[in-house]
Amino acid sequence: MGQRFDTLSFLSDLGVVDEHVGVVKAIVRDLAPQVQVVDLSHNIAVGDVRGGSLALARAVGYLPAGVVLAVVAAEERQAIAIEVAGGKGVLLGPDNGLLASAAAMAGGAERAVVLDRTEFHLASPGAVQSVRDVYAPIAARLCNGSDLTDLGRLVDADTLLPGVVPLPRPVADGGAAIHAEVLWVDHQGNCQLNIGLDDVSPWGLTEGTHLQVVVRDCTRSVERVARPSILGPGAVGLMLDGCGLLSLVLDHRSAAEELSLAASDQLIVQPLTEGSVGGGVTMPVNLRR
Amino acid sequence: MGQRFDTLSFLSDLGVVDEHVGVVKAIVRDLAPQVQVVDLSHNIAVGDVRGGSLALARAVGYLPAGVVLAVVAAEERQAIAIEVAGGKGVLLGPDNGLLASAAAMAGGAERAVVLDRTEFHLASPGAVQSVRDVYAPIAARLCNGSDLTDLGRLVDADTLLPGVVPLPRPVADGGAAIHAEVLWVDHQGNCQLNIGLDDVSPWGLTEGTHLQVVVRDCTRSVERVARPSILGPGAVGLMLDGCGLLSLVLDHRSAAEELSLAASDQLIVQPLTEGSVGGGVTMPVNLRR
Amino acid sequence: MGQRFDTLSFLSDLGVVDEHVGVVKAIVRDLAPQVQVVDLSHNIAVGDVRGGSLALARAVGYLPAGVVLAVVAAEERQAIAIEVAGGKGVLLGPDNGLLASAAAMAGGAERAVVLDRTEFHLASPGAVQSVRDVYAPIAARLCNGSDLTDLGRLVDADTLLPGVVPLPRPVADGGAAIHAEVLWVDHQGNCQLNIGLDDVSPWGLTEGTHLQVVVRDCTRSVERVARPSILGPGAVGLMLDGCGLLSLVLDHRSAAEELSLAASDQLIVQPLTEGSVGGGVTMPVNLRR
Repeated sequence: MGQRFDTLSFLSDLGVVDEHVGVVKAIVRDLAPQVQVVDLSHNIAVGDVRGGSLALARAVGYLPAGVVLAVVAAEERQAIAIEVAGGKGVLLGPDNGLLASAAAMAGGAERAVVLDRTEFHLASPGAVQSVRDVYAPIAARLCNGSDLTDLGRLVDADTLLPGVVPLPRPVADGGAAIHAEVLWVDHQGNCQLNIGLDDVSPWGLTEGTHLQVVVRDCTRSVERVARPSILGPGAVGLMLDGCGLLSLVLDHRSAAEELSLAASDQLIVQPLTEGSVGGGVTMPVNLRR
Repeated sequence: MGQRFDTLSFLSDLGVVDEHVGVVKAIVRDLAPQVQVVDLSHNIAVGDVRGGSLALARAVGYLPAGVVLAVVAAEERQAIAIEVAGGKGVLLGPDNGLLASAAAMAGGAERAVVLDRTEFHLASPGAVQSVRDVYAPIAARLCNGSDLTDLGRLVDADTLLPGVVPLPRPVADGGAAIHAEVLWVDHQGNCQLNIGLDDVSPWGLTEGTHLQVVVRDCTRSVERVARPSILGPGAVGLMLDGCGLLSLVLDHRSAAEELSLAASDQLIVQPLTEGSVGGGVTMPVNLRR
Repeated sequence: MGQRFDTLSFLSDLGVVDEHVGVVKAIVRDLAPQVQVVDLSHNIAVGDVRGGSLALARAVGYLPAGVVLAVVAAEERQAIAIEVAGGKGVLLGPDNGLLASAAAMAGGAERAVVLDRTEFHLASPGAVQSVRDVYAPIAARLCNGSDLTDLGRLVDADTLLPGVVPLPRPVADGGAAIHAEVLWVDHQGNCQLNIGLDDVSPWGLTEGTHLQVVVRDCTRSVERVARPSILGPGAVGLMLDGCGLLSLVLDHRSAAEELSLAASDQLIVQPLTEGSVGGGVTMPVNLRR
């Protein structure tokens, strides 16, 4: 027997309109009544493995000991369980990279199994719906103390699909300029980038100094700020956010809207070039109709 | 005294913007602190008794012993409680057909009461808000072991409003063709029909064979598939879904959007007619402007 | 040591797409595993302190003993805790007026502290995210029996930012007419006004009699009704709602849409003037293009 757990953290792309999330909780409640479910989000965009993986990675350091169920694009890859943190946590989800960053942040996979012991799955009245028929009863069994090896066949964690973490890179012949990427647009429209303070520290930025971002063909001056409320109306700031990454922000407005940015969009971040004026915007004139 | 319960399953059209659902949970938490609430969905469209009834019927087989509170269009009909499964479950909701399918799937109503014992309801500062003032305290009392007959007057279950279950029917002079109906469009846009494998088994379909659906004036070839990922881009499939019914699906796209279908829409499903080409679409030319 | 609690009621403008709400619950689950969270709403519009304050005030009378965490526009003002009801409740949130109405309805602030004991906050990998780093661990500590004074410096409750409660007022030279305001548009589109039965009782209204509302330049006859189902198609009613206030309603339709009303909008409510016809609408002709 493994460790018993009383918390199931749960993230998915199932939405909260259909009854799917509720059915998972009902099954777990029935099989493992000691378990409390902590919902992280069920509004990951349908099939957005990257977005789900990043949300899970941001949250994982705050989760209590227990089972973590993450299901995005669940039907297309086999179901796996990954043990982390000396057995204090088990990550459960499809082998599509969704769990990779969270597993790494929890210290790395210690054991992994493919959940192929179908005798522990629920019988379906039709096609297998893996969240309901596989993940829910397996999550309950793990909480009840089943060992990973009771539930499936051990696999080498190195054979599991890795996650994709976008790294910043220097712009060729671009001096100090960096190709960056939007990791996440939060509910306030703040745009979290894949760069931290270390990436821009050579530029000697202090609060109130300016730098530039280039989004598609548009160059925009942004101010290094500690918080959005310092910014004037319409001014764009670059702020160290609660995750330790740099985010583009406006005061009481959406940076994503102002800059037409979405998750996964690319942009260039660079120190202020000579002759450029803090706060200004250059916009290419488009001669095509 | 009846049985005590520690699970309340809860489905409603109350939405998750207003505080209504939270207030119900607060009242139950206060009166019956042993109870865990399992939310099935609170995003049933306002007043959509049919949609709520179907969601409840899909979920009911997975619910643990306990009280099931379902409120859609709650204010217009009297509040009832239905005991099912030898007392292991009590369904609570308005007498508008919402509970009928779930009760039938749980083995049928064993006893039913109208919740007219107002001394067990909460006093309202204004008009009675039945979810808060009637259903929440009654759900808590049922969990605490009150018998149905403590809470209201016994009624003959046959006098309660029945649910409406749309059945498929043959097309007149249409050979094997069937009038079907969309029961449910899920969050991925899959369209669940009110037909199962039995309805189409005389056509000798196997995976990969084609059949036709007629939506309004448009005839479309669809492929019998085991899962959406088999389908080419834009191709429509007919798949046995997780509920044991046939669903129209596309790979990574919404069948509801592609076919302009919504819940309750009618369509015809028929075997491939002679001369029709698998994968093709016929579309009537509209001569009106 | 103060009282221990096992319920945390939680209202916010954090939304349910990002993982923020889940992370708060994970932290509380880790530090105070006995606690159940009752979610009131996380869909308060971002930064809408007024809307959040009103939702909290509508709910507070139904909440069980425990901690109430309310966070709207959390980052801009210092974090406070207010003890109410002889220690049976502690309200936790920013000092921006959000808690004021709820505190008043719970009998008024008995003690208040500014949550400045940073040794009890979580360390952030970047900027402080107050919901996660301050409110979540403090809520858990309060549930575990910490006294307010363990967590911060006592302040005079009179120095805290008051809430703003819009009061109706008579129209100058308008006879009995009253300037009213929409407090809340609920999920059905009902428009709750800041007037009660007392405000209109001099007009001698009984069910079925008419009065008028003036929204911008448009005068509309409305019927005093006990419930929306009495109304004919398109007719607007004025109903005593479940909070004890008067609401504009339609039968199965949104009054907010029909009357183009949103929360905070002003309107005039007046007795029927001589010569006006029940059920009629006057609409100014707009001569501008």
